[in-house]
Amino acid sequence: MTERMLTVGILGATGAVGQRFVALLANHPWFRIGAVMASERSVGKVYGDAVQWHLPAVPGAAVREMCVTPCTPDGREGLDFVFSGLPAEEAVEIEPLFAARGIPVVSNTRSHRMDPRVPLVIPEVNAGHLAIIPDPSRTGDRQGFIVTNPNCATSALALALDPIHRRLGVRKVMVVTAQAVSGAGFPGLSVMSILDNAIPYISGEEPKLETEPCKIFGCIHHDQIMVSDMVISAACTRVAVRDGHLMHVSVELNQLASRDEIIACWDDYISDIHGLGLPSQPERSVEYLDVPDRPQPLLDRDRGQGMTVTVGRLRECAVLQWKFAVLGHNTIRGAAGGAILLAELLTVRGWFPRS
Amino acid sequence: MTERMLTVGILGATGAVGQRFVALLANHPWFRIGAVMASERSVGKVYGDAVQWHLPAVPGAAVREMCVTPCTPDGREGLDFVFSGLPAEEAVEIEPLFAARGIPVVSNTRSHRMDPRVPLVIPEVNAGHLAIIPDPSRTGDRQGFIVTNPNCATSALALALDPIHRRLGVRKVMVVTAQAVSGAGFPGLSVMSILDNAIPYISGEEPKLETEPCKIFGCIHHDQIMVSDMVISAACTRVAVRDGHLMHVSVELNQLASRDEIIACWDDYISDIHGLGLPSQPERSVEYLDVPDRPQPLLDRDRGQGMTVTVGRLRECAVLQWKFAVLGHNTIRGAAGGAILLAELLTVRGWFPRS
Amino acid sequence: MTERMLTVGILGATGAVGQRFVALLANHPWFRIGAVMASERSVGKVYGDAVQWHLPAVPGAAVREMCVTPCTPDGREGLDFVFSGLPAEEAVEIEPLFAARGIPVVSNTRSHRMDPRVPLVIPEVNAGHLAIIPDPSRTGDRQGFIVTNPNCATSALALALDPIHRRLGVRKVMVVTAQAVSGAGFPGLSVMSILDNAIPYISGEEPKLETEPCKIFGCIHHDQIMVSDMVISAACTRVAVRDGHLMHVSVELNQLASRDEIIACWDDYISDIHGLGLPSQPERSVEYLDVPDRPQPLLDRDRGQGMTVTVGRLRECAVLQWKFAVLGHNTIRGAAGGAILLAELLTVRGWFPRS
Amino acid sequence: MTERMLTVGILGATGAVGQRFVALLANHPWFRIGAVMASERSVGKVYGDAVQWHLPAVPGAAVREMCVTPCTPDGREGLDFVFSGLPAEEAVEIEPLFAARGIPVVSNTRSHRMDPRVPLVIPEVNAGHLAIIPDPSRTGDRQGFIVTNPNCATSALALALDPIHRRLGVRKVMVVTAQAVSGAGFPGLSVMSILDNAIPYISGEEPKLETEPCKIFGCIHHDQIMVSDMVISAACTRVAVRDGHLMHVSVELNQLASRDEIIACWDDYISDIHGLGLPSQPERSVEYLDVPDRPQPLLDRDRGQGMTVTVGRLRECAVLQWKFAVLGHNTIRGAAGGAILLAELLTVRGWFPRS
Repeated sequence: MTERMLTVGILGATGAVGQRFVALLANHPWFRIGAVMASERSVGKVYGDAVQWHLPAVPGAAVREMCVTPCTPDGREGLDFVFSGLPAEEAVEIEPLFAARGIPVVSNTRSHRMDPRVPLVIPEVNAGHLAIIPDPSRTGDRQGFIVTNPNCATSALALALDPIHRRLGVRKVMVVTAQAVSGAGFPGLSVMSILDNAIPYISGEEPKLETEPCKIFGCIHHDQIMVSDMVISAACTRVAVRDGHLMHVSVELNQLASRDEIIACWDDYISDIHGLGLPSQPERSVEYLDVPDRPQPLLDRDRGQGMTVTVGRLRECAVLQWKFAVLGHNTIRGAAGGAILLAELLTVRGWFPRS
Repeated sequence: MTERMLTVGILGATGAVGQRFVALLANHPWFRIGAVMASERSVGKVYGDAVQWHLPAVPGAAVREMCVTPCTPDGREGLDFVFSGLPAEEAVEIEPLFAARGIPVVSNTRSHRMDPRVPLVIPEVNAGHLAIIPDPSRTGDRQGFIVTNPNCATSALALALDPIHRRLGVRKVMVVTAQAVSGAGFPGLSVMSILDNAIPYISGEEPKLETEPCKIFGCIHHDQIMVSDMVISAACTRVAVRDGHLMHVSVELNQLASRDEIIACWDDYISDIHGLGLPSQPERSVEYLDVPDRPQPLLDRDRGQGMTVTVGRLRECAVLQWKFAVLGHNTIRGAAGGAILLAELLTVRGWFPRS
Repeated sequence: MTERMLTVGILGATGAVGQRFVALLANHPWFRIGAVMASERSVGKVYGDAVQWHLPAVPGAAVREMCVTPCTPDGREGLDFVFSGLPAEEAVEIEPLFAARGIPVVSNTRSHRMDPRVPLVIPEVNAGHLAIIPDPSRTGDRQGFIVTNPNCATSALALALDPIHRRLGVRKVMVVTAQAVSGAGFPGLSVMSILDNAIPYISGEEPKLETEPCKIFGCIHHDQIMVSDMVISAACTRVAVRDGHLMHVSVELNQLASRDEIIACWDDYISDIHGLGLPSQPERSVEYLDVPDRPQPLLDRDRGQGMTVTVGRLRECAVLQWKFAVLGHNTIRGAAGGAILLAELLTVRGWFPRS
Repeated sequence: MTERMLTVGILGATGAVGQRFVALLANHPWFRIGAVMASERSVGKVYGDAVQWHLPAVPGAAVREMCVTPCTPDGREGLDFVFSGLPAEEAVEIEPLFAARGIPVVSNTRSHRMDPRVPLVIPEVNAGHLAIIPDPSRTGDRQGFIVTNPNCATSALALALDPIHRRLGVRKVMVVTAQAVSGAGFPGLSVMSILDNAIPYISGEEPKLETEPCKIFGCIHHDQIMVSDMVISAACTRVAVRDGHLMHVSVELNQLASRDEIIACWDDYISDIHGLGLPSQPERSVEYLDVPDRPQPLLDRDRGQGMTVTVGRLRECAVLQWKFAVLGHNTIRGAAGGAILLAELLTVRGWFPRS
């Protein structure tokens, strides 16, 4: 039986995250771009003219010549679902309009992440949370809904914690980041602010890192997500790195464990999508590097085409119990790539039928 | 009564720390450089030719034309004391030779820092530790000894902690750094290693940050320094910043305190050298900035001519009690400047008599 | 006879150039800031709140608490003259309004630079061009006028050429730049555009470099400036340097000369303000460094408090005759500092009387 | 007929160029690495331990576990030829030893580049120069010889000039570069030298850029290469870019031409390897981009897998006739990639028989 390609729209297609969606969906085996939607400023232009492209790989001709249309669900019957890379203040209104019209939204925006009726999902970690979406097999009608993927730093942190959490229970987490400039979008930071500098503050970031993992590690109760009681303290720094969020993490666990046992958690990790072979799923979702000075953004961010989170430097912590370093590609795993992987999971689970 | 200038030697004068000594001693009101000492490779050349100078301000003509001599105490009777910016593996042998010949050593090197009979001193924090040096007034003979100043990151951390520690008692510390490249000396890091990158490891740095503050906050017992039982966990990152070590710090205190009370500790800090007006003493040794995104290396490292440690972002910590950001200039406060301030203190306390 | 302080206004005081004016006028011996003027967005705020300050040195309390007022000449009788750091599209209308009301404008903006009735002056190079301004001694009334200083790259290039041009005549110039990011103002360039990158284009820059020096080296004819017939070809590159425009220059001269004779032009340069001792005048306006790898932005931009232009690497050119490297601080010599030096010259020449 | 894989050795395999050879030869369809040769320091270690790898992609397991052997031709009968990434001072002695033993050397080193009996070849530009190597079909014996590829900056410059030179004749060239730090190898430049800086000097680089293109555009005379009389003036700058040499070029041509005619030279370029389809040959060897601010290292260096040279900004030059910007990937097209393409050409022309 041949399976059809799904036609997807991109909300906020000209922004930094939108560009990553366009880049990563080129040649996708299941999804093809059917609409690039953006703000008034861009509407009516062809995408190639509307976008100030800043990724090395150029978008393909088909997308470049697509006309940018407004972020409205009117006349979008041809779309199977949409990806959203909208700014939060726009997403809060626009995304529900699509959902209400039966067009599912896979959103990379923070607006609905902490809504207990909206799943916040890293496929490897909490695929089960998708169960709170109306069952696709039971209803004849097309269903609209919103699912979200987490903040860029949360994506890396939660994936690095999950293998330990499953076996040993993570009770407390202290995380301090060194985050890449692409996280601020484009134009984002002025070079005057960051060349020969580091900034110990990223607006709104620490609360996300302290709450989103608790929801991801939470459980379903009466069709809502209840947050875990994991305690997290986060401090965030911006550094002059293009891509890749690096973080030092200290943890207190529920169970005592040796260094080898903890490394084995990462080495033997069986995730929620183990063996599914989704198109964007890396060979290894988490990889521990047993060398003294890794992971590093420049050397490790592109592992698994940017979808592998890298861990290193596991050692004892004098204040909590263990500490280690974590790295994730913020605009791939932590944004568009994570959202695409989530859409792939929704596809194989039946929410986006291909036949 | 006119006071004479003291004549000082610099051990390791051509290295990164040595260059900072030369730069900071230009126009010093009490000290003048009498000898620039370095390794075989440089001996016999004039300083201007021997050094690969990498600071913006050029050394004065007098120093540039001084002949580089070997790191030996022979014939050094004319020196009142020496500063040492030697590599640790050389300092361990050379510094005691000078001390044994009656030439005091003010050392920026790690070799003798943790020796309980050698004071490890930040003048503001633990000037009292100098008491374990033989009393200058009681002996007629010239006394040799070694005193040390701490690691660059420790200097900033301990100064930031001291005002809180005095009033409220600091029990546990978690510190994660973003450290400047000048800390690695010259040539130090290859640009290939750090451009568009950050490295979550600095060889030997974490143990220093976890032990040196405990000695600085320790007490004298039988003419030795006993370390404090403060518990410190450190994680270090190298970032693409020229100067200025930035760190996120979380603490647990002995006493409960409000945010205002903690800020008052910094605002009202009375240090061990309060009011002494030493030439290198900044108007404020620690300064709290009540703005959301500071301190930053580029904007704050030069406060107090690089001698002021800046603190910001005090807020509650979900895992310990409070967290904040700290910045110190690593090659001034954290190296040559700190050592010069220490020598100034030794001078006014009588160890280096000027009359 | 005591001389009074002159009270100056700053047009565009919150922008990148405006901030440099504020920083450089702190503690100026002749000028004190009497008004900080900016766009609607800032009007009514105190300067300290209106400005997103990005220079290491903070503005003094007096300026920080000054109220930002609109860019209009109404009620400005208290100002002796104004400095303008306005964007060109605003300067074109606003500056003449001030001049018409008798308030002289010393402008760093390009709008009127090429107007033959407006002097475009580097004090060392063409102080004589000020002669086309109405003579201050002959008229009883207060006179308004506009004088301009050149583009940042032109400032360095023309100063480096002037000593050779005076003795040997420069006929043709090929110049290729590597320009600092501060030249684009603040926020200016996104870090995403320039980290690990260089951009071989700066909007509008090449025409300025090809025409402004010709006006500076031009002569007065019927109270207008006639441009020189020097032929200049320029190519501009933006690089990841904070401050300091570096350029490679090749020249064809009217007269044959040896390498030593050309270096002597720079070493023995007698400029138009030789010996005047203006407050912002550096000891040496142009300095030749006879070492293989200089000038460099990091090491040489701050010579003469940013007012000295540095030259190096004089060698034969296979296509023209000689080539060399030039460096100038773009936001000091090339902007606010150059304009202040020009105002100082206007002061001693009688246009801004201090008694 | 099945064709066999050729077994190649790499001289200087642990250095910066050597690493690129290893990376680019992974999965090469014709060549497989049979020996990694390096200096005493590395000999006896497995390659993975001997090398301080600094490229994102890690070397494959097969190479990582290969034993590093000394740079001697003894016992190298199994090698079809060797690539050399040796430092020049070692290459000058070692490469001829291999050639003398019948092992051809494809060298990326400068040592023999200007020897009139050694071809200096960019396959697209002067494949014909290989004719001075002894004809492989005429001699039964295995022949040793040395062929070289040009300096990294020359590679880009000569490829950009060739399409114009063929049709219109290039008489004079002025080139000013902004070169990437990887050109200095590893560790190469200290980050202290180049962060927030640019250096207007690269040791030995300008003479290479002024002479190598003249040899490449030269002709064969009595089995030697005679250099062209093209006149080139070069000035070189190091900037904080990882990879990609950018340059501004001005030219004087033998024939008058319009802007469109010159762009047509690049658009319609028929190179010496047109249509050969060599494995490392990019779809387009030279590509003109008709946008205002390109080429840029970050955005364009990876075109054609780093083998395409990009040109932009063609405009009139007031001093010569035309000027434009050029970009080439210095460690791929300008080093290992260029040498591999050359070896591929030698293979199809019969010097390295595969059957």
